[in-house]
Amino acid sequence: MEYITYQQDAKIGYVTLDNDKQRNALSAPLIEELNTLLAQIGEKSDVHVVIIQAAGKVFSSGHNLREIEGQTSQENLALFKKCEQLMKTMRDIPQVIISKVHGIATAAGCQLVAASDLAVASEKASFGAPGVHIGLFCSTPAVFISRNVGRKKAAEMLFSGDLIPAEDALAHGLVNKVVAHEQLDQVTLDLAKSVSRHSLSTLAIGKKEFYQQLNMEDFQALNYASEVIALNSEHEDAKEGIRAFIEKRQPSWREE
Amino acid sequence: MEYITYQQDAKIGYVTLDNDKQRNALSAPLIEELNTLLAQIGEKSDVHVVIIQAAGKVFSSGHNLREIEGQTSQENLALFKKCEQLMKTMRDIPQVIISKVHGIATAAGCQLVAASDLAVASEKASFGAPGVHIGLFCSTPAVFISRNVGRKKAAEMLFSGDLIPAEDALAHGLVNKVVAHEQLDQVTLDLAKSVSRHSLSTLAIGKKEFYQQLNMEDFQALNYASEVIALNSEHEDAKEGIRAFIEKRQPSWREE
Amino acid sequence: MEYITYQQDAKIGYVTLDNDKQRNALSAPLIEELNTLLAQIGEKSDVHVVIIQAAGKVFSSGHNLREIEGQTSQENLALFKKCEQLMKTMRDIPQVIISKVHGIATAAGCQLVAASDLAVASEKASFGAPGVHIGLFCSTPAVFISRNVGRKKAAEMLFSGDLIPAEDALAHGLVNKVVAHEQLDQVTLDLAKSVSRHSLSTLAIGKKEFYQQLNMEDFQALNYASEVIALNSEHEDAKEGIRAFIEKRQPSWREE
Repeated sequence: MEYITYQQDAKIGYVTLDNDKQRNALSAPLIEELNTLLAQIGEKSDVHVVIIQAAGKVFSSGHNLREIEGQTSQENLALFKKCEQLMKTMRDIPQVIISKVHGIATAAGCQLVAASDLAVASEKASFGAPGVHIGLFCSTPAVFISRNVGRKKAAEMLFSGDLIPAEDALAHGLVNKVVAHEQLDQVTLDLAKSVSRHSLSTLAIGKKEFYQQLNMEDFQALNYASEVIALNSEHEDAKEGIRAFIEKRQPSWREE
Repeated sequence: MEYITYQQDAKIGYVTLDNDKQRNALSAPLIEELNTLLAQIGEKSDVHVVIIQAAGKVFSSGHNLREIEGQTSQENLALFKKCEQLMKTMRDIPQVIISKVHGIATAAGCQLVAASDLAVASEKASFGAPGVHIGLFCSTPAVFISRNVGRKKAAEMLFSGDLIPAEDALAHGLVNKVVAHEQLDQVTLDLAKSVSRHSLSTLAIGKKEFYQQLNMEDFQALNYASEVIALNSEHEDAKEGIRAFIEKRQPSWREE
Repeated sequence: MEYITYQQDAKIGYVTLDNDKQRNALSAPLIEELNTLLAQIGEKSDVHVVIIQAAGKVFSSGHNLREIEGQTSQENLALFKKCEQLMKTMRDIPQVIISKVHGIATAAGCQLVAASDLAVASEKASFGAPGVHIGLFCSTPAVFISRNVGRKKAAEMLFSGDLIPAEDALAHGLVNKVVAHEQLDQVTLDLAKSVSRHSLSTLAIGKKEFYQQLNMEDFQALNYASEVIALNSEHEDAKEGIRAFIEKRQPSWREE
């Protein structure tokens, strides 16, 4: 991989966007590397949580404008479909994905945070959908931003194009936590550990169910959820987990 | 009833989960009693608001794990469908339901709060979806938690399994008010009275419409809402209410 | 126009509800004037942002109850459909609509704020859906209130009928900003300017896409958004905007 590095430790996979020179732009090659890497992680039973982080000054500045500029709209459609596929891979892998945001995350960079399952930000981070400034409305970032943030605030970000500070991102639900810059690693790790101790099968069942039901009418969702949890109840990890709870001991998951 | 008590006063019905020994678990028999009781209250025109509260240390710890443990997944499906029916009864009765949460509300106990129309919590209360700890993801609680709380926070509750304090529940929309423990009764009563003074017919029209339209596309919703309010306008209570407003006097509802 | 005045300056259209005597009620004639005016503004390429404001003590008290009282439910349906058409016009015109709320905004008056793209409120403003007080549930206001505000808070507003102060409206997402009364004009103007500097074509593409995708399943939305942004990328304003960005200069939009 040219634009990304990967490390793994104690059930946590660390994916680092590492192209400071291009402000970690989600260029076509970076998107492809990231998509391929995440799909591979999806096959690993020894990774329960993925942390997406970035090296350099910014988290990610979004798509590479020089790439978009030189292309026809058909070629750009192919590019945006690649990015869509990346979001779908993030959704489909069993691992819980946490974005760790140390700096500016704009446009598709902000979308990456919004499409993550969880996010932790430094107080120095900022977020935005500035496409309107250059005549290219952030239509794709709008999708997950508006599924994290209320309608009025999402509209403000998109129609003004202005960045919002980390504190606002927290208040409006775009991130889970905002912390002092020097605590970003530790707090993100703590959150990752609070998830990674769980059975991967259970996380996989839950992640799939959580997003599926979000897009259903209330009682369709509950009907579906009842079937999922009933099936879950006969899974080996649930049987072990419930037994452990009753016997007041720590559970031991099958895959360990 | 063995696990629930019921009292009624001044248009307010008080439903008390009363099985401290089992931490007010939503066991099959408790669910059945609660469902039957709420369905009966649904027929009462002298009750406008239902307060669901609990006796003992916790509000409710959710399903009874010993029950789930000993059953096949088919039997568990039947159990979760019973719980689904309870949520449907809560939705279908004309009365506005307020959960009064004095302590811990977890898993299906948290779902009960989330599925209520309104909720008031003591500052000592806490909320969570800890199923992931025991390998049984809180798929059913996820439905109404994620319809109260933003996506990122809901994901955090579900994937970490950690409890959140009452203040966080307030900030994220799971409850309407958080108050000092000793004021919980009074503040809940005040909220109940602010609703119970209204015409039950109007509350019934509104409750049905509110939830139906939530699940529709914006202008389908508005089209539906226009028909509901037009029909509502010829209801005797609306005619009286509007006349009373114009004549600057208190309205007198038909059923009184 | 009898109940509305209109001014225009520097790409911003100022629509003023001006019927203090009737508390700027959304009477049938006012609705018709407002709908016609907004549709006309929709044709103007020299207006990028519309500010809806009000003269007199209140912002708007909602529908005219004397009108509703004297009519059959069929006639009232026609009235509510007129109001629905107004909301549709607000949605369909390319301009971004900002409500500037200096006082009380109730029932359909609150709906007007909720249906706006953005809103700024004075600290003296208050908001509510008080229909339940008069037996006429705020079914139509419920639609956009509940698409701005979380479920529990929306239910509280609708079932209690109580007003909420501006600060609560901000905390729950009904408005974008709350400011000191004497700063309302300036802050609203600043927000309007931060939007009006953008290309109207881009705002139009974005406004349409933003609301369309909100009502779709996540990946249907993203699929649609990819097509919109790909098409957007070959628009003259996007080509100019991207070139200007790369050349580190201000873009010059086609229509100017």
